[in-house]
Amino acid sequence: MTFSKQQLEHFCLSIFLKMGVPEKDAQLATDVLLLADLRGIDSHGLARLSGYVRLWEKNRINANAQPKIVRETLSTATVDADAGLGLIAGPYAMQIAIDKAKATGSGWVSVKNSNHFGIAAFHAMMALEEDMIGIAMTNASPLVAPTFSKERMLGTNPMCFVFPSKKHQPVVVDMATSTAANGKLEIAQRLGKNLPQGWVQKNDGSETNDANALKSGGSLLPLGSDRDHGSHKGYGLSATVDILSAVLSGANFGPWVPPFVAFLDPDPNPVGEGIGHFFGAMRVDAFREKEEYFNSIDTWIERFKNAERINENQAVIIPGEPEMECYNNRIVNGIPLNDVVLQDLIELGKKMGVEL
Amino acid sequence: MTFSKQQLEHFCLSIFLKMGVPEKDAQLATDVLLLADLRGIDSHGLARLSGYVRLWEKNRINANAQPKIVRETLSTATVDADAGLGLIAGPYAMQIAIDKAKATGSGWVSVKNSNHFGIAAFHAMMALEEDMIGIAMTNASPLVAPTFSKERMLGTNPMCFVFPSKKHQPVVVDMATSTAANGKLEIAQRLGKNLPQGWVQKNDGSETNDANALKSGGSLLPLGSDRDHGSHKGYGLSATVDILSAVLSGANFGPWVPPFVAFLDPDPNPVGEGIGHFFGAMRVDAFREKEEYFNSIDTWIERFKNAERINENQAVIIPGEPEMECYNNRIVNGIPLNDVVLQDLIELGKKMGVEL
Repeated sequence: MTFSKQQLEHFCLSIFLKMGVPEKDAQLATDVLLLADLRGIDSHGLARLSGYVRLWEKNRINANAQPKIVRETLSTATVDADAGLGLIAGPYAMQIAIDKAKATGSGWVSVKNSNHFGIAAFHAMMALEEDMIGIAMTNASPLVAPTFSKERMLGTNPMCFVFPSKKHQPVVVDMATSTAANGKLEIAQRLGKNLPQGWVQKNDGSETNDANALKSGGSLLPLGSDRDHGSHKGYGLSATVDILSAVLSGANFGPWVPPFVAFLDPDPNPVGEGIGHFFGAMRVDAFREKEEYFNSIDTWIERFKNAERINENQAVIIPGEPEMECYNNRIVNGIPLNDVVLQDLIELGKKMGVEL
Repeated sequence: MTFSKQQLEHFCLSIFLKMGVPEKDAQLATDVLLLADLRGIDSHGLARLSGYVRLWEKNRINANAQPKIVRETLSTATVDADAGLGLIAGPYAMQIAIDKAKATGSGWVSVKNSNHFGIAAFHAMMALEEDMIGIAMTNASPLVAPTFSKERMLGTNPMCFVFPSKKHQPVVVDMATSTAANGKLEIAQRLGKNLPQGWVQKNDGSETNDANALKSGGSLLPLGSDRDHGSHKGYGLSATVDILSAVLSGANFGPWVPPFVAFLDPDPNPVGEGIGHFFGAMRVDAFREKEEYFNSIDTWIERFKNAERINENQAVIIPGEPEMECYNNRIVNGIPLNDVVLQDLIELGKKMGVEL
């Protein structure tokens, strides 16, 4: 079934308000979730709304959080998210990065004591209006095993880099540092399909293409899949996200990151506070005349779009292009919700006294 | 044959001096190349020395370059490397990043008009002595095809992230954004071995495990190898390196990056100057009390070292650990050079009037 942005927006906003999130924050959190659905990152949009509510019911999300700067220099800051929604702490911290970039050329913010922040691209893309490069990362509940390990030690820890352009859509690299995002596994599970080899391993570390292996104690594999194909690189990138987001801010890292699912309790002996994020902003004119930068990035985009194809029917894709096409389509034609998500939202609406 | 660091250092320094590189710069360039050999990144050490000389002979490397800042803000700078050795421009630019981080918390430097800068880790690791996080990237001659393309559009564009620690070795993530580095292909070629599937493709974009496919007009594959295993992520990371290093600085990007080999001429219609690099430094105490950071990073390292193993005989590796072990071994026992490299250096010595 397909819903208009307005319908889903009204529902989502109402749920956050019922949780006691202040109106301005509730609207912002709604914007972040809906952008995921609009861009086709369905696993990070309304599909997660009931998960946030369950964490709030367990007092693991502070609906009325007041994020604040706890340390800063001219170009950096550390933010305590006050155990609130990452959906709110993310834009708060990214705005600090942007403000510092206005003043000093660049701004860098590490965040502790937060929760899941939705899609990284929402936050990083805030930089675009200011003609800045935007960067956003977050650690997440452990699901990924490092190379040579069978233990879930890292989240799918996404990295996002966003570059403004003039004639074309911006370049938006937004990627989990695992081979496959968890959302893709869920789709395969729903369809009863096997996975490609190299996405997950069984709980003893052996190979499998079983989409249910993760549920049976297995783990996701880092980008690269195995040692021969560079899984140590995916592991290194994921480690980088974890350290920038959490070791630098004082959040939990590695296997201590609290689970997103409310039925699993956080570690009783945490090494930090909540989960961690990392944001950056750099003014392009801190490095080069704006016009020169924009000429170059537009040339970059045009040249890559026109790279020689293997198959004449499949053009080379500029990072972020499919998501932008999806956005342009769904903003007009509406957002499809699958049965599982729809049922979940109806139940949630009943519980919270909000009609979909 | 194995040589002491001192023997190779003397030889390498003499070659750079014969090229007319000023003494202090010649020593620095030698240090950068030798660190590659000491850390076991043999493809980026003395094996490349004759390549630099050939580029200098073709007037494509300025031996007496004076890199300078051409634009700056409090936390950023753009450097023109004056067509000199990247081995010298790299440390020059990284030092600017470090100095800016001292003053404002972080420093970020994009470099144009440069040449190959050796191993990224040399530059990024300069941050360690200052208790800073170090970052280094560079674009490189096009060898890698984006997802869905058969055209060489990107270099192996490495990313390096370095995190200081106290009780343990630092965490050093230093990785090509392709599935396999070119050096690994050269080893397979020398041994007449087949490659794992997913490292290279033929010139029509079809799969192959032929180690000579690259020589026959094929291309390296981005980290992830194919679309199903996330090659669009490796492509996105490589694009990020290219844009930060070159679109931001005014260097050549994508297929316009000048070839490292002297027998191929640069594009007669360049889109920028030379090749580009990108460097960053962030003070850990700009985000958190030093002692807290060091406690956390040491806990991170210990916990990951002790992650459950798949095979009892293979521990989980901390990024940078194998290179540090190699360094500790070679600094005592010497640096092995294979026959091809040794012969190349002997020829080079004859040409330049320097004895190995």
